[in-house]
Amino acid sequence: MKFTKMHGLGNDYVYVNCFKETVENPSEVAKYVSDRHTGIGSDGLIMICPSSQADFEMQMYNADGSRGEMCGNGIRCVGKYVYDYGLTDQTSISVETLGGIKYLDLNVVEGKVASVKVNMGHPGLKACEIPIIMDEGREQDPVILSPIEVRGQTYQMTGVSMGNPHTVVYLENVQGMAIEEIGPAFEQHERFPNRINTEFARVLDRRTVEMRVWERGSGETMACGTGACAVAVASILNNYTENQVTVRLLGGDLEIEWDREADIVYMTGPATTVFDGEIEI
Amino acid sequence: MKFTKMHGLGNDYVYVNCFKETVENPSEVAKYVSDRHTGIGSDGLIMICPSSQADFEMQMYNADGSRGEMCGNGIRCVGKYVYDYGLTDQTSISVETLGGIKYLDLNVVEGKVASVKVNMGHPGLKACEIPIIMDEGREQDPVILSPIEVRGQTYQMTGVSMGNPHTVVYLENVQGMAIEEIGPAFEQHERFPNRINTEFARVLDRRTVEMRVWERGSGETMACGTGACAVAVASILNNYTENQVTVRLLGGDLEIEWDREADIVYMTGPATTVFDGEIEI
Repeated sequence: MKFTKMHGLGNDYVYVNCFKETVENPSEVAKYVSDRHTGIGSDGLIMICPSSQADFEMQMYNADGSRGEMCGNGIRCVGKYVYDYGLTDQTSISVETLGGIKYLDLNVVEGKVASVKVNMGHPGLKACEIPIIMDEGREQDPVILSPIEVRGQTYQMTGVSMGNPHTVVYLENVQGMAIEEIGPAFEQHERFPNRINTEFARVLDRRTVEMRVWERGSGETMACGTGACAVAVASILNNYTENQVTVRLLGGDLEIEWDREADIVYMTGPATTVFDGEIEI
Repeated sequence: MKFTKMHGLGNDYVYVNCFKETVENPSEVAKYVSDRHTGIGSDGLIMICPSSQADFEMQMYNADGSRGEMCGNGIRCVGKYVYDYGLTDQTSISVETLGGIKYLDLNVVEGKVASVKVNMGHPGLKACEIPIIMDEGREQDPVILSPIEVRGQTYQMTGVSMGNPHTVVYLENVQGMAIEEIGPAFEQHERFPNRINTEFARVLDRRTVEMRVWERGSGETMACGTGACAVAVASILNNYTENQVTVRLLGGDLEIEWDREADIVYMTGPATTVFDGEIEI
């Protein structure tokens, strides 16, 4: 099986061109190739397939063999793959995912895709759609700097759904905080019936926010595309920033823009090819 | 740069054929390729080069860019590489390393190397050559089930040098022990002036021993070739086992034989090719 290893801000997958390759048992193959010592080593497997509804389909499997819906860092690499490897000559493409059809704009520099802009859709702001449990009668309201007690301390949270649930908490000191203790306490808090991804953020200026993320089920990660979108939306809602924000994550920067008129969030970030390989399955 | 990813019991390196490839700055290349998210992902880089003193030279760099002397799991893969990729048609070969010239016997099954037997040399048993600090007048004696106090508890240790320092401790329960606490306490104990690799072992029968290893500078690892040799030598010295021992490590089994007449330890174990790739450096 021929493959390409790519990453978006350090979030790395094994990419397979399924216009040419057939993967018989993708769940098992994902587990095998993802092992970082006895396999290729990755966060999972992404198969680029023909689609009847869009230009391409992205089929994603996590390292544990489970099916993944969508991944902001992964889909940027899909955009780079299909252009750089000649599967398309278009720079505006659509990609079918389990999280719906996504639209990508490819930024080409010297014949290769350097960065990709992804339409991340509408942000969900109502408490019930995130979901966050609020007092009766407030289920349809947005959750903006709303108090929550976690491990005996009161935080002000702002809730955002980007297809998955997020809560954003602003802190004075993001780099020095004990995310390994506070992250899980948010994740398992009774007010988040589907658990929660928590972003700990600090506004640097009206165009820049730094953040760390605790992803539900994964712990702290280098970068989370939907988390960066949630932080930008929360910062704009709170009028901490303009509508276009650079979000600094541990793995690097993402540019997030919230088009308020169309109510669409755009994420722009890098996609990197590491190497091509061939493995016996 | 063309490369092959191989592993011995999960100890994985990026292998480069330097009969064909030139690596300009191996220390920097090792750091780049070893990163498990933005590089190929490995425990380091091993370059297979021409040698004036042996059939081949193995030049090894760790993931942090430092030079490595020798690696039992790595050299088995070198043996598999040179035969499987046609650099030799011999099944007994010599390999120059920073730890001296090593001699390998290749076990070929259906045209490919399945396992490799490595002459690991003489074990060092004197306290001063391991080194372990003993009472005055006992520096030349072997260290056999000698008491040592670590974190308020007394253990019986057996010392073995396999070019690097080892101490072997027999326990009733190896799988359930708190290696993260006890391993570092051994490593930094004042009686080991060069620090120490510690093997926690349990004899299963006269031909089988299980072990876990705390490697100096690395912590717990899946497999340590010299550690398995030290465990076999210690078990034979203590008459717990015969001269040929299967050592069960977390990453898999190694067969260790101590030829008492020639005073040479042989290690036999698997070597596995994972995939071939090409990366821009």
